[in-house]
Amino acid sequence: MAGSTFGTLFKISTWGESHGEGIGVVVDGCPAGIPIDEDYIQSFLDRRKPGQSEFTTMRNEADKVKIMSGVFEGKTTGTPISLQILNTSQISKDYSNIMDVYRPGHADFGFDSKFGIRDYRGGGRSSGRETAARVAAGAIAIKMLSYLGVEFTTYVKSVGEIEIDYSKFDKDEIMRNKLYMPDKEAAEKAGRYLESLIESKDSSGAVVELKCTGLPVGLGEPVFEKLDARLAEAIFSIGAVKGFEIGDGFKAAASKGSENNDPFRIKDGKVVKETNHSGGILGGISDGGDLVLRAAFKPTPSIYQKQHTVNNKGEEVDIEIKGRHDPIVAPRAVVVVEAMTALVIADLLLQNCTSKMDNVLKIYSCN
Amino acid sequence: MAGSTFGTLFKISTWGESHGEGIGVVVDGCPAGIPIDEDYIQSFLDRRKPGQSEFTTMRNEADKVKIMSGVFEGKTTGTPISLQILNTSQISKDYSNIMDVYRPGHADFGFDSKFGIRDYRGGGRSSGRETAARVAAGAIAIKMLSYLGVEFTTYVKSVGEIEIDYSKFDKDEIMRNKLYMPDKEAAEKAGRYLESLIESKDSSGAVVELKCTGLPVGLGEPVFEKLDARLAEAIFSIGAVKGFEIGDGFKAAASKGSENNDPFRIKDGKVVKETNHSGGILGGISDGGDLVLRAAFKPTPSIYQKQHTVNNKGEEVDIEIKGRHDPIVAPRAVVVVEAMTALVIADLLLQNCTSKMDNVLKIYSCN
Amino acid sequence: MAGSTFGTLFKISTWGESHGEGIGVVVDGCPAGIPIDEDYIQSFLDRRKPGQSEFTTMRNEADKVKIMSGVFEGKTTGTPISLQILNTSQISKDYSNIMDVYRPGHADFGFDSKFGIRDYRGGGRSSGRETAARVAAGAIAIKMLSYLGVEFTTYVKSVGEIEIDYSKFDKDEIMRNKLYMPDKEAAEKAGRYLESLIESKDSSGAVVELKCTGLPVGLGEPVFEKLDARLAEAIFSIGAVKGFEIGDGFKAAASKGSENNDPFRIKDGKVVKETNHSGGILGGISDGGDLVLRAAFKPTPSIYQKQHTVNNKGEEVDIEIKGRHDPIVAPRAVVVVEAMTALVIADLLLQNCTSKMDNVLKIYSCN
Amino acid sequence: MAGSTFGTLFKISTWGESHGEGIGVVVDGCPAGIPIDEDYIQSFLDRRKPGQSEFTTMRNEADKVKIMSGVFEGKTTGTPISLQILNTSQISKDYSNIMDVYRPGHADFGFDSKFGIRDYRGGGRSSGRETAARVAAGAIAIKMLSYLGVEFTTYVKSVGEIEIDYSKFDKDEIMRNKLYMPDKEAAEKAGRYLESLIESKDSSGAVVELKCTGLPVGLGEPVFEKLDARLAEAIFSIGAVKGFEIGDGFKAAASKGSENNDPFRIKDGKVVKETNHSGGILGGISDGGDLVLRAAFKPTPSIYQKQHTVNNKGEEVDIEIKGRHDPIVAPRAVVVVEAMTALVIADLLLQNCTSKMDNVLKIYSCN
Repeated sequence: MAGSTFGTLFKISTWGESHGEGIGVVVDGCPAGIPIDEDYIQSFLDRRKPGQSEFTTMRNEADKVKIMSGVFEGKTTGTPISLQILNTSQISKDYSNIMDVYRPGHADFGFDSKFGIRDYRGGGRSSGRETAARVAAGAIAIKMLSYLGVEFTTYVKSVGEIEIDYSKFDKDEIMRNKLYMPDKEAAEKAGRYLESLIESKDSSGAVVELKCTGLPVGLGEPVFEKLDARLAEAIFSIGAVKGFEIGDGFKAAASKGSENNDPFRIKDGKVVKETNHSGGILGGISDGGDLVLRAAFKPTPSIYQKQHTVNNKGEEVDIEIKGRHDPIVAPRAVVVVEAMTALVIADLLLQNCTSKMDNVLKIYSCN
Repeated sequence: MAGSTFGTLFKISTWGESHGEGIGVVVDGCPAGIPIDEDYIQSFLDRRKPGQSEFTTMRNEADKVKIMSGVFEGKTTGTPISLQILNTSQISKDYSNIMDVYRPGHADFGFDSKFGIRDYRGGGRSSGRETAARVAAGAIAIKMLSYLGVEFTTYVKSVGEIEIDYSKFDKDEIMRNKLYMPDKEAAEKAGRYLESLIESKDSSGAVVELKCTGLPVGLGEPVFEKLDARLAEAIFSIGAVKGFEIGDGFKAAASKGSENNDPFRIKDGKVVKETNHSGGILGGISDGGDLVLRAAFKPTPSIYQKQHTVNNKGEEVDIEIKGRHDPIVAPRAVVVVEAMTALVIADLLLQNCTSKMDNVLKIYSCN
Repeated sequence: MAGSTFGTLFKISTWGESHGEGIGVVVDGCPAGIPIDEDYIQSFLDRRKPGQSEFTTMRNEADKVKIMSGVFEGKTTGTPISLQILNTSQISKDYSNIMDVYRPGHADFGFDSKFGIRDYRGGGRSSGRETAARVAAGAIAIKMLSYLGVEFTTYVKSVGEIEIDYSKFDKDEIMRNKLYMPDKEAAEKAGRYLESLIESKDSSGAVVELKCTGLPVGLGEPVFEKLDARLAEAIFSIGAVKGFEIGDGFKAAASKGSENNDPFRIKDGKVVKETNHSGGILGGISDGGDLVLRAAFKPTPSIYQKQHTVNNKGEEVDIEIKGRHDPIVAPRAVVVVEAMTALVIADLLLQNCTSKMDNVLKIYSCN
Repeated sequence: MAGSTFGTLFKISTWGESHGEGIGVVVDGCPAGIPIDEDYIQSFLDRRKPGQSEFTTMRNEADKVKIMSGVFEGKTTGTPISLQILNTSQISKDYSNIMDVYRPGHADFGFDSKFGIRDYRGGGRSSGRETAARVAAGAIAIKMLSYLGVEFTTYVKSVGEIEIDYSKFDKDEIMRNKLYMPDKEAAEKAGRYLESLIESKDSSGAVVELKCTGLPVGLGEPVFEKLDARLAEAIFSIGAVKGFEIGDGFKAAASKGSENNDPFRIKDGKVVKETNHSGGILGGISDGGDLVLRAAFKPTPSIYQKQHTVNNKGEEVDIEIKGRHDPIVAPRAVVVVEAMTALVIADLLLQNCTSKMDNVLKIYSCN
């Protein structure tokens, strides 16, 4: 119950279903005095909106965000910021082929078992559409973090077995191709692979990678709200994620201590690390290195091939999924990964403000 | 701040440092009426206690648990269960070589930056010793889950690049070898590998795998407290974890929808899945299949080689770590992974009790 | 920060300002399968809407609620229920006389000190209008509780020094007079008193009383989430409340143990209490008696007399408050007290479902 | 479930029963760098320890506190501070007269209904002894607040119908008499009244009052974590409290706006209030005035008169309570009220640190 709230100080509560009135989010705990407007938030939503290319669903949603509260004269007021995106494309459809059937790879069976009732229209609450609300909230977190010099670069690292070549990494390329990949050649190759999958009514998995620079040292609360623990939860709360790594990730399991330890050095009077196997986190606390994380997305479960499954009457049936589905989740999920990462960092950055008495005294002596 | 509490209904709060008075945990929200005694909890602690073999630290800790509250006449009373393990081996030592030095791969630098003060004795709060408290709490969760038929099998899947062979999987073998591996040959090979690392003053990473059977369908709260999200957080809160997977994990990212979807079938009147690529979770909710998860552990950062690093005065220095350190984290972490998994499941299982009004009416009509 | 969320399992998050786009609430954790519609919720909102009589502000707000999510085919689905009430009367006004002035008795000074920015239009977030969102959420809690036989009677007990006479208590009268008092004569007397206050540009305090029958025994979580503790918090979160009592309240402080203890008896095979000095709560847990609570409301701070105060430039100034203000808070607050009480009970009733293992087994054995 | 945790940032989790191994508390989220030692905490515990006078139970408990973690070289480290008080006087007793009987005015019936099992020895978890853990935690909060100039004066305002005379208020007198009253004459009169009650095997209620000076403006989080709402919860979580007031409290309900509003003024360049009917809180936020709160305590329910009640077999029985019981709760509760108030203020003071972006920038620019 009550699983739609995330965060301790920078806290969000999302709502909404794929084909209901709309979706939205209440952001509570955002500090007062940050300039926010709808255009700014919209620019993030546009990165995940449908209809961008042949690799994203053709659903015709403008995904226009509206600020309902918490912003006054262009600035956050410290009170809850309510954001909403009305559904415009939830035209009455024929759901008879899925309303009582459990689609393979989907949450239908779980929802019915759990709640005894399910809004089957377009996946209802379990639709990926729910993540638009997170992106809207994440945009505010990203704005807040920008004042502290924290910046994000997020992209698709691999599609199926096609990986980017880091020697060809071009940050500007990310926003230029349809797959949000930083390597033009890999993007083209992946595009051709996806076209072949569309033809065979299939779909592909992918890996999304994020780098974050400028993170203050000291973020993350031992022992259960470690920075990596909170990030793992945040990223795994995105539908279709099946794996998560920080820094060297699973490769570290095959490594030796003498290789994996990052030596500390002094550079320009600051403590730095020579290497970054840790991915910017040691002992659950940001260590001054760049944060590096990866999320493995499974292939879109909605494929157009005929599939064998069961219905809610306990009968085995065939199903042919119709509608508008992406052959790959990851490109539109790039900005979702970025948003969830920013929400975690914003929350832990605020929590860290009171880690030592000196900080508290600093606040109140000047009040 | 305040990061040492975990869970919503089945909630734990841990405390303690490696070389202080002791460590402990308060378990709040455990239902009343469950038989618990110290011997039972001790049996779990013994699986992670030091000194089990040449591959675990020789620190001489009995790790004896004492129940301080919450159990009356052999049963839980519904009030907080306080468990504590006094430190017996924190004999005064010479910490002069590490008290002002930041050990590579450790949280020392992060703690100092964050708090401005650090209990440097044996790692203080960031010591792996802290996980003993989680194991004690987890034992209670496992007991509760056993009444519902939920069972765990947890083991080391790989050491460095040495993996188990599933065709030789022998559950009984897990408790027989020093590395908690279910494949005798792999365990022997891994043992020889670790001996060579000890000789070269090095350490190894590893992967721990867990299978859980008997999980009720419907556990996990959309959208932020999904079963996999909560598990990811729980496992990543264990020190040294750098990667986490459910089911096919990263392999799913290279897969196709037609391969990755698990077809539903009816078997003995029950909905079952033909395959289990999902690892028992769909849309963040348990799907009736076995839960399968994996955690990648980095190599123990405390190695005996001379390392270059910095101290808290901003100087570059050499460090030679002394003391008693495991050449591999994973074998003793097996029971920690099991404990954290059980804590998450216990919490979500209780939360799920009120997912539908029918359940609520069932409780109160019979009260 | 983040103070707009209330509850653990039955959780609400409210948003909105008096003269912004609107106000709303997200209800998360409501069990699935409860019939809810807008007309039902509206009937509660109508009890607090403006313009009901000469004793309530003439602001012309329809306060029409819209269900944005979480209800499908007329029933709750277990996912977040988003409710919103758009502002229709926030016509551009001249706020120049209050925008930089701290109204006595109001939160203006506190908000400015805390946030450095304040939506001054109609009180912004600190307006009593915010409670409409709570009433909408509370209506759902009341619906849920009705299935368990829990019922509420809430009314104004006193206006200024005019108290109801319990010998003339008439439950039906409550909804018949403008002041929601259960004693017609007292209501008429109070009405005349309020008319005189309106004439003298003044306002009155009042006491609201609530009785709740049918509460299951055992609600309330020792030691910090006691039923009375949670109620005290809930009622004191309503603006203008300055006092709170359970049962005999402050009278108990002048009493003796031999008078205050309620003897237990057996009646029809059930444990009952002979008297109810406790107000239905012992040791923080519902004891089977009727829940009785009282809230003291201060007089409306917005009075039309000229008042001396300061502005945000640090100058002393005179202020004459304009606009539409109730000469008494309590009548419209009656339903707010009822809503907040219901939200607490709903939350603790769900929490209590897992207090003993027998309950948990009952749920899962029948799943 | 899980009701033994309190607070968001400055968080405490208590455990323990009256006659078990001991009681304790884990304080998590206390900023690092605050000097704390056992003697300091002990001085607060001594104010509530048994055996101080003929008006407190003769139970022979030293109530010696031990710091188990979280303090290193005399200072808090930012990690959980575990405090424990072992029970020394829980000598095996004959509980046969109460083990299956529900004492009037006690939580026995509620606990049995809720949990199905109850540690009946001395009240178990529902014993007032549990509050010693809160006092220990509160001492740390008070220490933290002292650095910001926040100070507390807490005392018994009335015993039965005997009230202090404010014209004779003497702060130093509080610690000199056995009843912690600031008026010597009233204390003597109350003492004689209590002696008469002891003779008639009866007990008395009382009112405790607290004043807190030096509170920064701006504490309290709208709308559910208002300062007064959190205080109401905190104080009502203390056993035997039946009423709570801020400032004028219930008197405000009989007042007029023109009397109740506190005019703002400028004094020495600071915004101040001419009067303090508000008790230091407006709109849930500290307003710069002294915080004034009152708690009504019911008479001790354990009286030595023969009482009629029921047992857990559903039979009506007579009970004569034995043991060691205070004829009045309030004197020993004075320090508990102070501790709970300080815990709330400490928590909200930390939360307020991030209310505006300027504060956040202040922290990180200097880090």
